[in-house]
Amino acid sequence: MKVITEALEFSTRTHRAYLNVTPEVTRIVERSGVREGLCYVGSLHTTAAVFVNDDEEGLLADLDERLEALAPFSPEYRHHKTGETNGDSHLKSLLLHPQVIVPVTEGKLDLGTWQRIFYAEFDGRRRKGVRVKVIGE
Amino acid sequence: MKVITEALEFSTRTHRAYLNVTPEVTRIVERSGVREGLCYVGSLHTTAAVFVNDDEEGLLADLDERLEALAPFSPEYRHHKTGETNGDSHLKSLLLHPQVIVPVTEGKLDLGTWQRIFYAEFDGRRRKGVRVKVIGE
Amino acid sequence: MKVITEALEFSTRTHRAYLNVTPEVTRIVERSGVREGLCYVGSLHTTAAVFVNDDEEGLLADLDERLEALAPFSPEYRHHKTGETNGDSHLKSLLLHPQVIVPVTEGKLDLGTWQRIFYAEFDGRRRKGVRVKVIGE
Repeated sequence: MKVITEALEFSTRTHRAYLNVTPEVTRIVERSGVREGLCYVGSLHTTAAVFVNDDEEGLLADLDERLEALAPFSPEYRHHKTGETNGDSHLKSLLLHPQVIVPVTEGKLDLGTWQRIFYAEFDGRRRKGVRVKVIGE
Repeated sequence: MKVITEALEFSTRTHRAYLNVTPEVTRIVERSGVREGLCYVGSLHTTAAVFVNDDEEGLLADLDERLEALAPFSPEYRHHKTGETNGDSHLKSLLLHPQVIVPVTEGKLDLGTWQRIFYAEFDGRRRKGVRVKVIGE
Repeated sequence: MKVITEALEFSTRTHRAYLNVTPEVTRIVERSGVREGLCYVGSLHTTAAVFVNDDEEGLLADLDERLEALAPFSPEYRHHKTGETNGDSHLKSLLLHPQVIVPVTEGKLDLGTWQRIFYAEFDGRRRKGVRVKVIGE
C-alpha cells in the first residue's frame, strides 16, 4: 500500500475565487506512484470548498451568484459576535462541501471528459491550504 | 489490497430522474471480493449526482421540487452563452454533490436500514456514466 | 492494511442538534493503529448529516437557521403521505451531505486548525447511529 500526503497553498487576490487545481493534483498523483486507489482533495479551512465540475467561466459565475443567493453576505450572522465578518463564507463552504474523492485508475485521475477539480475560496486574501492524500497500490 | 473499477451507464427517458442503483453497486461489491474497505460511487458527468437516502416516491418528488426551487431552470444562466441550456443541471449536481463513499463491511455495503444509493440525473435523454471503485482487502 | 469499523450512537433531547464528535472519532483513530489512511464518518440514518466546520455556537445557530430557510419544516411534503412528518429532515440531510472523509496522517486526524467533525441531527429524540471506518496502514 502506498500513501502520499501533500498540501496546496493559495492566497487569492479576491474575496471569492474559483481555481482549477486539476494540474496540481495530477502532478501529485503522478509523483505518488499509485496506479489504483483514491485521491482525497479537501480544504484545511472552514471558509473554502473543493468541488468537481466544468471549467467554464460562465458556469463559475452562475455558481457564485447562486451561492450568494442561497447563503448571502450579511452583517447579521450570529457568528459575527466573535468579531468575524465571514458568516456567509462558512455557509457557502458547507453547501458546496469542503472535499471530494477522485478515483485513481491506471495511474491517472479518473475524471469524466468535462470534470475538473476546483478550489472554491469564500474568504480570500490570506493564505489557505488544501490537503491532497493519495492511497492505493 | 484489492481494487475493482467498474462503470454503470444510464440513459433516462426523462430530463430529470432518480434511480435506485443499490442492486447494481451491491453486485459490484460482491464481485470485488473485498470484505473490508470503501466503495466510491460517483458521477462521470457534471450534470448528475449520487446520493444516499430513502427509496420513497414522495420523498424523491419533494427532493426534485426543492432542488428546482434552490437552482431553478432558467434561460438566463451565463453558461448558456456557450450554446448549452443546462445551467440549472450543473447547479443541482453541485448542491446535491456528485459522489458518495459507502463503507464495505463483512463483504457487504454498510448501509443503514433505510439507506439506498441513488443516481440523480439532471440532464437526461443521453448516455451518462457513474464510476464505481471498491478498495480494501 | 488495517481496517477498523465502529459506530457512534446518539439520542438527542432536541429535534435538531449539532454535536462535535471530534473527540470520539479521535479515540477510534488512535485505537485503530492506522498511521496513514482515510477515516470515513457517515450517518446510518437518512435524516442526519456529518460535516466539518468551526465549533462556534453562533455559527451553528446561523447554519441551523439557513438550513431551515433552504429546506423548511412544512406539513405539505409528499413524503408525509407515508405517515411521516420529517420531510424537511431528509432534505436538510441531503443539502448538508451525510458523510465526510478525514485523512489520517502520522496517526492523527488531519484537520485544519479550526476544523471539527460534527454530527447534525435533524430528527432527534430517538436512537441514531454514525458509522466510523478507518482504513490504512
